Amino acid sequence: MRLRDVGEFGLIERIERAVRRSGRARGVVLGIGDDAALLRLRAGDDLAVSTDALVEDVHFRFASEAPRSIGRRALAAALSDLAAMGARPLAVVAALAAPPTLPLAHAEGIVRGIVDGARRWDAPLVGGNVARAKQTSLTLTVLGAVRRGRALTRAGARPGDRIFVTGTLGGAALAVARAARGARVRIAPEPRLAAGLALARLLGVGACIDVSDGLVADLGHLLRASRVGAQIDPARVPRPAGFAAACRRAGADPERLALAGGEDYELLFTLRSRLAPAALQRRLGVRVAEIGAITRVRGLRGLPAAGQTGWTHF
Amino acid sequence: MRLRDVGEFGLIERIERAVRRSGRARGVVLGIGDDAALLRLRAGDDLAVSTDALVEDVHFRFASEAPRSIGRRALAAALSDLAAMGARPLAVVAALAAPPTLPLAHAEGIVRGIVDGARRWDAPLVGGNVARAKQTSLTLTVLGAVRRGRALTRAGARPGDRIFVTGTLGGAALAVARAARGARVRIAPEPRLAAGLALARLLGVGACIDVSDGLVADLGHLLRASRVGAQIDPARVPRPAGFAAACRRAGADPERLALAGGEDYELLFTLRSRLAPAALQRRLGVRVAEIGAITRVRGLRGLPAAGQTGWTHF
Repeated sequence: MRLRDVGEFGLIERIERAVRRSGRARGVVLGIGDDAALLRLRAGDDLAVSTDALVEDVHFRFASEAPRSIGRRALAAALSDLAAMGARPLAVVAALAAPPTLPLAHAEGIVRGIVDGARRWDAPLVGGNVARAKQTSLTLTVLGAVRRGRALTRAGARPGDRIFVTGTLGGAALAVARAARGARVRIAPEPRLAAGLALARLLGVGACIDVSDGLVADLGHLLRASRVGAQIDPARVPRPAGFAAACRRAGADPERLALAGGEDYELLFTLRSRLAPAALQRRLGVRVAEIGAITRVRGLRGLPAAGQTGWTHF
Repeated sequence: MRLRDVGEFGLIERIERAVRRSGRARGVVLGIGDDAALLRLRAGDDLAVSTDALVEDVHFRFASEAPRSIGRRALAAALSDLAAMGARPLAVVAALAAPPTLPLAHAEGIVRGIVDGARRWDAPLVGGNVARAKQTSLTLTVLGAVRRGRALTRAGARPGDRIFVTGTLGGAALAVARAARGARVRIAPEPRLAAGLALARLLGVGACIDVSDGLVADLGHLLRASRVGAQIDPARVPRPAGFAAACRRAGADPERLALAGGEDYELLFTLRSRLAPAALQRRLGVRVAEIGAITRVRGLRGLPAAGQTGWTHF
């Protein structure tokens, strides 16, 4: 069965059934199926909104990833932007574009992946759109709630702030490198929602961004938005266990993957309190590493020379 | 200049500049440029959210429509869903996918069209995404506010309700038919936002939907959601001035275009008060026509036989 066999409204009906099976969620006044969905915020909350797209052959390939994983990963990536603002997920809307020849199982798999993630991360699928296109793509818009005045932004870093990152970096880029060499890998990122919420409650947080394009690129966005610079120590950038050996086997450069590899969806943030890393870790519920400091002088220092690592476009 | 000459971040910078020039809007706490935008609702308002996509060669062609018109029309179509809920626009986020070879002027034209419409309809562009794809597409997610308990839905029609439609139908379909024959046409739909807001304040409104897929299709959605039927009088479906003659010249069937043609973005609603059409028109600030009534018996009666008009799939 292909998409053309059930048509636009046949696919929409299937999506609505999958969503209804997953039950009703708090904050949703009117879910999928009308001209718009209706959501209710708690008094004192602002709405956070972000949109993100995955395109076939650019961000995913059906040959190397299950449709369900594509849908789940798309939602994780979108929710990571809410985590970086310190927002709690409210809902997601999905726009799927696909050729009429797409196997129905692929489309349903993507939707099931979104619905799986929606349940896991408390972000119900409340609406969407389906359209015909030459290439399959999935555009997700996520909605979240954040206490007024408590949102984290990219713009709040000040000279002297300590720079931290959650979890480890480079693992997703290594998986992509191994997949390119034919290995079967599973990439199932977890948006750091609980850590983002904890950061939004913490005093002294300067700026925050999620690491989607890679540490160097995303730290660059944060520095430009805050009009400051940074000095980092690449050796302190946290990597997964056994990373160096796994990179060697895959023929990849561990330093390059940890510094420039994307899609780990960890949080990168600055802090101007003296809170010890262990205490910070307890508050955030996740491992954190201090990797450098914000400087008044613009630019990013401490990196190995560009020629050694290859990120010429930064 | 093509997209690949400025790159992803070059395009994003241009978009941010275009948006900043258009000024700051009420309700926007944090606009374009961070991980998410922040919006503030008024106390007692619910959030309405809807997403809509236009795909090249399916919904638009660069050969027959200016990029600016494509952007504006995409926003009009998306906002029409908010109008149908009786919601006031708050903001829009845009996801643009395009090949690296797309002329930069096309991408900038689309963005300018969105920003034009954003100003006109008070729906500031607060965020977005750009991605590489084989085909150009634009996915807009619109956010609106509606007083709690006052949203219009598709599901509220009851037997005996009178059925109304705003403006005229068939004009957009005629323009599309003429464009297909090589004529230069301009399609600049206006979402019925003021009429939707007025309907949300009016007592006795049953159900509401916008006419995007065509009267018969959208009335069908409303009837299914409300679990009722309808009897309509095709002769009372309002058409633009000079419509029959213009259809004759274009070789098109006026009845088919008025009943089945889409993209007019008028509001179709039901009313259970005795309000005279003239009084209703004053309240809504737009021409309205009464075209039939809701019936307990399911299905849609009053249509010409399908063979005569050709809409075999309804």
